[in-house]
Amino acid sequence: MARIETAPDSPFGPDNLPYGVCAPRDGGPRVCVRLGDYAIDLSSVFDDPDFAAPTLNKFLARGPRRWHEIRHRLRDLVDGLIPDAAVHLLTEVDQLLPIQVGDYVDFYASIDHATNLGRLLRPNSEPLLPNWRHLPVGYHGRSGTVVVSGTAIHRPCGQHRTDSGVTAFGPTRRLDIEAELGFVVGVGSPLGTRIHTGAFAEHVFGVVLVDDWSARDVQAWEYQPLGPFQGKSFATSISAWITPLAALEAARVPLPEQHPRPLPYLCETEDWGLDIDLTIEWNGSAVSHPPYARMYWSPAQMLAHLSVNGAATRTGDLYASGTVSGPHREQRGSFIELCWGGDEPVEIGGARRTFLEDGDEVVITADAPGVSGSRIGLGEVRGRILPAIGH
Amino acid sequence: MARIETAPDSPFGPDNLPYGVCAPRDGGPRVCVRLGDYAIDLSSVFDDPDFAAPTLNKFLARGPRRWHEIRHRLRDLVDGLIPDAAVHLLTEVDQLLPIQVGDYVDFYASIDHATNLGRLLRPNSEPLLPNWRHLPVGYHGRSGTVVVSGTAIHRPCGQHRTDSGVTAFGPTRRLDIEAELGFVVGVGSPLGTRIHTGAFAEHVFGVVLVDDWSARDVQAWEYQPLGPFQGKSFATSISAWITPLAALEAARVPLPEQHPRPLPYLCETEDWGLDIDLTIEWNGSAVSHPPYARMYWSPAQMLAHLSVNGAATRTGDLYASGTVSGPHREQRGSFIELCWGGDEPVEIGGARRTFLEDGDEVVITADAPGVSGSRIGLGEVRGRILPAIGH
Repeated sequence: MARIETAPDSPFGPDNLPYGVCAPRDGGPRVCVRLGDYAIDLSSVFDDPDFAAPTLNKFLARGPRRWHEIRHRLRDLVDGLIPDAAVHLLTEVDQLLPIQVGDYVDFYASIDHATNLGRLLRPNSEPLLPNWRHLPVGYHGRSGTVVVSGTAIHRPCGQHRTDSGVTAFGPTRRLDIEAELGFVVGVGSPLGTRIHTGAFAEHVFGVVLVDDWSARDVQAWEYQPLGPFQGKSFATSISAWITPLAALEAARVPLPEQHPRPLPYLCETEDWGLDIDLTIEWNGSAVSHPPYARMYWSPAQMLAHLSVNGAATRTGDLYASGTVSGPHREQRGSFIELCWGGDEPVEIGGARRTFLEDGDEVVITADAPGVSGSRIGLGEVRGRILPAIGH
Repeated sequence: MARIETAPDSPFGPDNLPYGVCAPRDGGPRVCVRLGDYAIDLSSVFDDPDFAAPTLNKFLARGPRRWHEIRHRLRDLVDGLIPDAAVHLLTEVDQLLPIQVGDYVDFYASIDHATNLGRLLRPNSEPLLPNWRHLPVGYHGRSGTVVVSGTAIHRPCGQHRTDSGVTAFGPTRRLDIEAELGFVVGVGSPLGTRIHTGAFAEHVFGVVLVDDWSARDVQAWEYQPLGPFQGKSFATSISAWITPLAALEAARVPLPEQHPRPLPYLCETEDWGLDIDLTIEWNGSAVSHPPYARMYWSPAQMLAHLSVNGAATRTGDLYASGTVSGPHREQRGSFIELCWGGDEPVEIGGARRTFLEDGDEVVITADAPGVSGSRIGLGEVRGRILPAIGH
């Protein structure tokens, strides 16, 4: 038996306990929770086949009562001695994609991000389109290319329009990130039903960090009139760890004011703004600190909107917030904003940089207030850029 | 043992043999092929667990060699006597969704449709956007709301902008169809690889009919700048039967001329235009006959484009052509085109109609040339509109 001690300021202390799926060197995947620098194998602790599984989906489908029961038992477990067989150093396991993704939706919920993109892409008109303050704008992304943190990202190829108006093909020259939060649906909803804002926590299990890799030159040429496709579909990275909503109780805050007042189906009955601070590191330099608390639309509103037309949801559905950006330069959540379309390079380690180069690594981390002064860290999302394949 | 005779002009004769999944009244789902008005249960004929399955995915994942072997053996089987236990009248089984859908992508590959929509939605500018002739424009749809033919469609609710500029919520008032072909991926491709146009038939198993239900008022208000979302995500119907590419050999035709010549990765090495004629019936009246042979982009080009950025594909991925429209009014594949945005009602059974009303039923059928003068029918896609729920 082992006791795992974590420092009082550890972002992965006993108030956090995020879930993931790990494979030790000598065995198959199983559901784990993270405590400090360790993964605790739940299939060794609980006699439940949901945990001897390659994804969290079975456990998530059980619903909030089971989620809370297991969290309660885990809190007791980590306060005492844990069976040796259940404890693995994180460095000795492979951290896998924690969910089988159903549908993946990406929203556009930051008013600062939407305003910045509007200014960059449509410089001669109102930056926010007329619908933006009335509904959380979103679109479906590719669920089959959601990958776990640490997966290398090959620079994608695609069509773009050159400055001289020629249609060209090749590796993207404007490879970018978008730092986002993602929300994982545990309990789905049948076709023809809605999820009201007040039922958010009955359906959503927890939160991941998301890096929505974006090829801006491909996206700019393709996206009219049906939205982003090839500029985004090559890869979307998520953290290996899902922080349960239950760990974020102390992070809940009111939304910034919404004007005009949303239609009734979008009104919140409780606060689901989240006081989570993101950090973006580019080759080891912290270049931005986007504040999630500034987001205009809450995750409860996004889910209510997503399902208001009767669209079904499923266990493993993932929906992301869109880029988290604040009003200041050092709070921008994408490099196209940070370097203002390429016009204002960023200084990193003495070099002036705009978009991603081969070999670059980006790491997004985040933390939030926990109970009684502790901090809750979200699992990091990390990716290194490799050269384009076969071009 | 039974011999199934089909009329020489039957669209579901022995040259067709589409695949589906059926559940007899007294048993679970199993893979079947259709011959005339019968479903032949493959799990009773072949000793292969792939066919005692709730979807076709396992069989599809086996790849072209297995697909051809089974088709060859089925051709022999249906020429002779079939075990009684394997034969079910279609009226005595439930026809189920034949695949577990991975990612669902919808393209926009008809030049007549894209031109019509451009004229309707952007009357004061060039109807075709600059990118349209350079790449098959497409977007991801919601895979979790792909339903089988016969599923009732509840009128969805959503936001729309009234003529006086007020943002309102309620049941859509412009509920429409889009008649499309869908292509089912059998063998996927790993992240970081491409599917060249010449490898189309190594990956794609077959074809379904698709009705991409659309709430035009919701779509018009929401779709900028990220594309259609709630206006489409409530339901997409597909036929219960998947016609294998092998049954469509005689339907293959060259594409209409593409100008400008596509970039090399989009050039076809063999013809994958398809001479398939669709028919749209609205409450029993045939209102349109869209010709698939007029489509600008081929399904091989769509798949090459979809994967050129290294996006992975999976067994069960579905991609649709977008609305099939021809140059004449009676060839338009959506009602917004047919009634020109509401300005030119259609006469059905003595009534003048524009968009769908509660109780309306739409049936899309299609047929193609088979070998030696036979005809190949695609499985129909049928849907009836029910009133909005809970509004």
